[in-house]
Amino acid sequence: MNKMILLVEDNADDEALTLRAVKKQMPHEIVVAHDGAEALDFLFGTGTYDDRDPSIRPLLILLDLKLPRVNGLEVLRRIRSDHRTKMIPVVVFTSSTEEQDILDSYTLGANSYIRKPVDYTQFCSDLKQVVNYWLVVNQLPPLRACS
Amino acid sequence: MNKMILLVEDNADDEALTLRAVKKQMPHEIVVAHDGAEALDFLFGTGTYDDRDPSIRPLLILLDLKLPRVNGLEVLRRIRSDHRTKMIPVVVFTSSTEEQDILDSYTLGANSYIRKPVDYTQFCSDLKQVVNYWLVVNQLPPLRACS
Repeated sequence: MNKMILLVEDNADDEALTLRAVKKQMPHEIVVAHDGAEALDFLFGTGTYDDRDPSIRPLLILLDLKLPRVNGLEVLRRIRSDHRTKMIPVVVFTSSTEEQDILDSYTLGANSYIRKPVDYTQFCSDLKQVVNYWLVVNQLPPLRACS
Repeated sequence: MNKMILLVEDNADDEALTLRAVKKQMPHEIVVAHDGAEALDFLFGTGTYDDRDPSIRPLLILLDLKLPRVNGLEVLRRIRSDHRTKMIPVVVFTSSTEEQDILDSYTLGANSYIRKPVDYTQFCSDLKQVVNYWLVVNQLPPLRACS
Protein backbone atom coordinates (compact mmCIF):
# COMPACT_ATOMS: atom_id res chain seq x y z
CA MET A 1 0.00 0.00 0.00
CA ASN A 2 1.11 3.54 -0.81
CA LYS A 3 2.19 5.31 2.38
CA MET A 4 3.47 8.51 0.90
CA ILE A 5 3.49 11.86 2.64
CA LEU A 6 4.10 15.02 0.60
CA LEU A 7 6.09 17.64 2.48
CA VAL A 8 6.02 21.08 0.87
CA GLU A 9 8.88 22.98 2.48
CA ASP A 10 11.42 25.45 1.13
CA ASN A 11 13.54 25.83 4.25
CA ALA A 12 16.40 23.31 4.19
CA ASP A 13 16.75 23.21 7.99
CA ASP A 14 13.04 22.57 8.52
CA GLU A 15 13.09 19.94 5.78
CA ALA A 16 15.97 18.11 7.44
CA LEU A 17 14.30 18.32 10.87
CA THR A 18 11.00 17.03 9.51
CA LEU A 19 12.55 14.14 7.61
CA ARG A 20 14.60 13.16 10.63
CA ALA A 21 11.63 13.36 12.98
CA VAL A 22 9.29 11.36 10.75
CA LYS A 23 11.79 8.74 9.63
CA LYS A 24 12.83 8.12 13.20
CA GLN A 25 9.63 6.31 14.01
CA MET A 26 7.49 5.87 10.94
CA PRO A 27 7.71 3.77 7.81
CA HIS A 28 6.27 6.37 5.48
CA GLU A 29 7.90 7.53 2.30
CA ILE A 30 8.27 11.30 2.29
CA VAL A 31 8.43 13.24 -0.93
CA VAL A 32 9.65 16.81 -0.63
CA ALA A 33 8.56 19.65 -2.90
CA HIS A 34 10.65 22.76 -2.36
CA ASP A 35 8.18 25.35 -3.59
CA GLY A 36 4.50 25.65 -4.43
CA ALA A 37 4.91 25.13 -8.16
CA GLU A 38 6.87 21.92 -7.62
CA ALA A 39 4.15 20.67 -5.24
CA LEU A 40 1.45 21.26 -7.87
CA ASP A 41 3.58 19.65 -10.60
CA PHE A 42 4.09 16.63 -8.38
CA LEU A 43 0.40 16.31 -7.52
CA PHE A 44 -0.88 16.76 -11.06
CA GLY A 45 1.93 15.14 -13.05
CA THR A 46 2.93 18.30 -14.90
CA GLY A 47 6.18 20.20 -15.58
CA THR A 48 9.21 18.33 -14.29
CA TYR A 49 6.83 15.60 -13.06
CA ASP A 50 5.09 15.01 -16.38
CA ASP A 51 6.30 11.41 -16.39
CA ARG A 52 4.77 10.74 -12.97
CA ASP A 53 1.42 8.96 -12.58
CA PRO A 54 -0.70 11.51 -10.68
CA SER A 55 -3.17 8.80 -9.63
CA ILE A 56 -0.56 7.79 -7.06
CA ARG A 57 -1.44 10.33 -4.44
CA PRO A 58 0.01 11.16 -1.04
CA LEU A 59 -2.02 10.11 1.98
CA LEU A 60 -1.24 13.39 3.71
CA ILE A 61 0.16 16.77 2.71
CA LEU A 62 2.23 18.84 5.13
CA LEU A 63 2.15 22.32 3.66
CA ASP A 64 4.28 25.32 4.55
CA LEU A 65 2.73 28.69 3.70
CA LYS A 66 5.56 31.01 2.79
CA LEU A 67 6.82 29.33 -0.36
CA PRO A 68 8.60 30.57 -3.48
CA ARG A 69 6.88 30.72 -6.89
CA VAL A 70 3.39 29.69 -5.71
CA ASN A 71 2.52 30.38 -2.08
CA GLY A 72 1.01 27.80 0.23
CA LEU A 73 -2.48 29.27 0.30
CA GLU A 74 -2.65 29.15 -3.50
CA VAL A 75 -1.40 25.55 -3.44
CA LEU A 76 -4.17 24.74 -0.94
CA ARG A 77 -6.78 26.45 -3.11
CA ARG A 78 -5.67 24.41 -6.13
CA ILE A 79 -5.67 21.16 -4.13
CA ARG A 80 -9.23 21.78 -2.93
CA SER A 81 -10.43 22.80 -6.41
CA ASP A 82 -9.41 19.59 -8.19
CA HIS A 83 -11.47 16.40 -7.84
CA ARG A 84 -8.27 14.32 -7.82
CA THR A 85 -6.85 16.00 -4.73
CA LYS A 86 -9.69 17.75 -2.94
CA MET A 87 -10.08 15.09 -0.25
CA ILE A 88 -6.42 14.59 0.65
CA PRO A 89 -5.92 15.77 4.24
CA VAL A 90 -3.85 18.95 4.24
CA VAL A 91 -2.12 20.00 7.44
CA VAL A 92 -0.62 23.47 7.28
CA PHE A 93 2.75 23.21 9.01
CA THR A 94 4.33 26.60 9.32
CA SER A 95 6.25 29.01 11.49
CA SER A 96 3.68 31.73 10.82
CA THR A 97 1.92 33.00 13.91
CA GLU A 98 -0.36 35.37 12.04
CA GLU A 99 -4.06 35.00 12.77
CA GLN A 100 -4.85 35.85 9.17
CA ASP A 101 -2.88 32.85 7.96
CA ILE A 102 -4.82 30.55 10.29
CA LEU A 103 -8.09 32.07 9.16
CA ASP A 104 -7.22 31.88 5.45
CA SER A 105 -6.00 28.29 5.79
CA TYR A 106 -9.23 27.07 7.37
CA THR A 107 -11.31 29.12 4.95
CA LEU A 108 -9.55 27.47 2.01
CA GLY A 109 -10.18 24.00 3.46
CA ALA A 110 -7.09 23.04 5.44
CA ASN A 111 -7.96 20.17 7.77
CA SER A 112 -5.64 21.43 10.46
CA TYR A 113 -3.05 24.14 11.22
CA ILE A 114 0.14 23.45 13.16
CA ARG A 115 2.68 26.02 14.25
CA LYS A 116 6.16 24.54 14.03
CA PRO A 117 7.64 24.48 17.50
CA VAL A 118 11.05 26.14 17.80
CA ASP A 119 12.28 23.57 20.32
CA TYR A 120 13.56 20.42 18.58
CA THR A 121 12.14 17.95 21.10
CA GLN A 122 8.74 19.59 20.85
CA PHE A 123 9.04 19.70 17.05
CA CYS A 124 9.60 15.93 16.95
CA SER A 125 6.84 15.25 19.44
CA ASP A 126 4.28 17.38 17.58
CA LEU A 127 5.23 15.95 14.22
CA LYS A 128 4.93 12.42 15.52
CA GLN A 129 1.46 13.24 16.81
CA VAL A 130 0.49 14.82 13.49
CA VAL A 131 1.55 11.81 11.42
CA ASN A 132 0.14 9.29 13.89
CA TYR A 133 -3.13 11.15 14.16
CA TRP A 134 -3.74 11.43 10.43
CA LEU A 135 -2.42 8.07 9.29
CA VAL A 136 -3.27 5.78 12.21
CA VAL A 137 -6.10 7.23 14.32
CA ASN A 138 -7.95 9.08 11.56
CA GLN A 139 -9.79 7.31 8.75
CA LEU A 140 -8.63 8.64 5.40
CA PRO A 141 -11.06 9.25 2.55
CA PRO A 142 -11.56 6.12 0.43
CA LEU A 143 -9.29 5.98 -2.62
CA ARG A 144 -12.25 6.00 -5.01
CA ALA A 145 -13.03 9.51 -3.73
CA CYS A 146 -10.16 10.86 -5.81
CA SER A 147 -10.65 8.95 -9.01
CA MET B 1 -11.02 30.79 28.63
CA ASN B 2 -13.82 28.65 27.25
CA LYS B 3 -12.65 25.05 26.89
CA MET B 4 -15.89 23.45 25.89
CA ILE B 5 -16.24 20.35 23.75
CA LEU B 6 -19.62 19.47 22.26
CA LEU B 7 -20.26 15.75 22.10
CA VAL B 8 -23.21 14.76 19.90
CA GLU B 9 -24.03 11.21 20.88
CA ASP B 10 -27.29 9.32 21.32
CA ASN B 11 -25.88 6.06 22.65
CA ALA B 12 -25.77 6.15 26.46
CA ASP B 13 -22.93 3.63 26.70
CA ASP B 14 -20.76 5.53 24.23
CA GLU B 15 -21.58 8.78 25.99
CA ALA B 16 -20.49 7.36 29.35
CA LEU B 17 -17.30 5.92 27.83
CA THR B 18 -16.42 9.19 26.13
CA LEU B 19 -17.05 11.32 29.20
CA ARG B 20 -15.02 8.94 31.33
CA ALA B 21 -12.14 8.84 28.85
CA VAL B 22 -11.95 12.60 28.37
CA LYS B 23 -12.48 13.60 31.99
CA LYS B 24 -9.82 11.18 33.10
CA GLN B 25 -7.04 13.34 31.74
CA MET B 26 -8.35 16.63 30.46
CA PRO B 27 -9.82 19.73 32.03
CA HIS B 28 -12.36 20.41 29.32
CA GLU B 29 -16.04 20.91 29.92
CA ILE B 30 -18.08 18.51 27.82
CA VAL B 31 -21.60 19.33 26.79
CA VAL B 32 -23.63 16.41 25.46
CA ALA B 33 -26.38 16.73 22.87
CA HIS B 34 -28.34 13.51 22.49
CA ASP B 35 -29.63 14.01 18.97
CA GLY B 36 -28.99 16.20 15.97
CA ALA B 37 -31.80 18.66 16.68
CA GLU B 38 -30.52 19.21 20.23
CA ALA B 39 -27.00 19.82 18.86
CA LEU B 40 -28.29 22.49 16.47
CA ASP B 41 -30.43 24.10 19.20
CA PHE B 42 -27.38 24.21 21.45
CA LEU B 43 -25.13 25.71 18.79
CA PHE B 44 -27.58 28.33 17.59
CA GLY B 45 -29.42 29.13 20.84
CA THR B 46 -32.80 27.94 19.65
CA GLY B 47 -35.55 25.62 20.98
CA THR B 48 -34.79 24.39 24.47
CA TYR B 49 -31.55 26.40 24.33
CA ASP B 50 -33.14 29.75 23.43
CA ASP B 51 -31.81 31.25 26.65
CA ARG B 52 -28.24 30.25 25.81
CA ASP B 53 -25.75 32.73 24.34
CA PRO B 54 -24.73 31.10 21.02
CA SER B 55 -21.61 33.27 20.82
CA ILE B 56 -20.13 30.92 23.43
CA ARG B 57 -19.03 28.21 21.08
CA PRO B 58 -17.38 24.84 21.58
CA LEU B 59 -13.72 24.57 20.60
CA LEU B 60 -14.34 21.15 19.11
CA ILE B 61 -17.34 19.09 18.07
CA LEU B 62 -17.32 15.28 18.29
CA LEU B 63 -20.17 14.20 16.06
CA ASP B 64 -21.79 10.81 15.79
CA LEU B 65 -23.55 10.14 12.47
CA LYS B 66 -26.52 7.91 13.23
CA LEU B 67 -28.58 10.29 15.33
CA PRO B 68 -32.33 10.62 16.00
CA ARG B 69 -34.37 13.57 14.64
CA VAL B 70 -31.59 15.19 12.56
CA ASN B 71 -28.79 12.91 11.38
CA GLY B 72 -25.12 13.72 11.80
CA LEU B 73 -24.46 14.57 8.16
CA GLU B 74 -27.26 17.13 8.18
CA VAL B 75 -25.91 18.58 11.44
CA LEU B 76 -22.50 18.86 9.75
CA ARG B 77 -24.02 20.54 6.71
CA ARG B 78 -25.76 23.10 8.91
CA ILE B 79 -22.58 23.75 10.92
CA ARG B 80 -20.59 24.42 7.75
CA SER B 81 -23.33 26.61 6.26
CA ASP B 82 -23.49 29.13 9.12
CA HIS B 83 -20.82 31.81 9.54
CA ARG B 84 -20.98 31.43 13.34
CA THR B 85 -20.00 27.77 13.30
CA LYS B 86 -18.39 27.02 9.96
CA MET B 87 -14.81 27.09 11.28
CA ILE B 88 -15.28 24.97 14.40
CA PRO B 89 -13.30 21.75 13.96
CA VAL B 90 -15.69 18.84 13.55
CA VAL B 91 -14.43 15.33 14.15
CA VAL B 92 -16.86 12.63 13.11
CA PHE B 93 -16.71 10.01 15.85
CA THR B 94 -18.78 7.02 14.91
CA SER B 95 -19.06 3.25 14.82
CA SER B 96 -19.94 3.36 11.12
CA THR B 97 -17.51 1.53 8.89
CA GLU B 98 -19.27 2.46 5.66
CA GLU B 99 -17.07 4.09 3.03
CA GLN B 100 -19.98 6.25 1.96
CA ASP B 101 -20.17 7.80 5.42
CA ILE B 102 -16.46 8.65 5.31
CA LEU B 103 -16.82 10.12 1.85
CA ASP B 104 -19.94 12.14 2.73
CA SER B 105 -18.35 13.43 5.92
CA TYR B 106 -15.26 14.76 4.16
CA THR B 107 -17.36 16.13 1.31
CA LEU B 108 -19.48 18.10 3.78
CA GLY B 109 -16.38 19.52 5.46
CA ALA B 110 -15.57 17.30 8.42
CA ASN B 111 -11.99 17.93 9.52
CA SER B 112 -11.43 14.32 10.45
CA TYR B 113 -13.21 10.95 10.72
CA ILE B 114 -12.61 8.53 13.57
CA ARG B 115 -14.03 5.06 13.88
CA LYS B 116 -14.82 4.32 17.52
CA PRO B 117 -12.66 1.42 18.63
CA VAL B 118 -14.58 -1.45 20.20
CA ASP B 119 -11.84 -2.15 22.74
CA TYR B 120 -12.10 0.15 25.77
CA THR B 121 -8.36 0.74 26.17
CA GLN B 122 -8.06 1.64 22.49
CA PHE B 123 -11.17 3.82 22.75
CA CYS B 124 -9.57 5.82 25.58
CA SER B 125 -6.24 6.04 23.81
CA ASP B 126 -7.74 7.24 20.53
CA LEU B 127 -10.00 9.74 22.24
CA LYS B 128 -7.11 11.14 24.22
CA GLN B 129 -5.18 11.59 20.99
CA VAL B 130 -8.16 13.24 19.31
CA VAL B 131 -8.66 15.79 22.07
CA ASN B 132 -4.94 16.43 22.54
CA TYR B 133 -4.38 16.80 18.81
CA TRP B 134 -7.18 19.29 18.24
CA LEU B 135 -6.89 21.34 21.42
CA VAL B 136 -3.16 21.26 22.14
CA VAL B 137 -1.15 20.49 19.00
CA ASN B 138 -3.50 22.07 16.45
CA GLN B 139 -4.07 25.83 16.22
CA LEU B 140 -7.77 26.58 16.36
CA PRO B 141 -9.36 29.24 14.16
CA PRO B 142 -9.24 32.68 15.81
CA LEU B 143 -12.40 33.56 17.72
CA ARG B 144 -13.10 36.54 15.45
CA ALA B 145 -13.57 34.05 12.61
CA CYS B 146 -16.97 33.14 14.00
CA SER B 147 -18.31 36.56 14.90
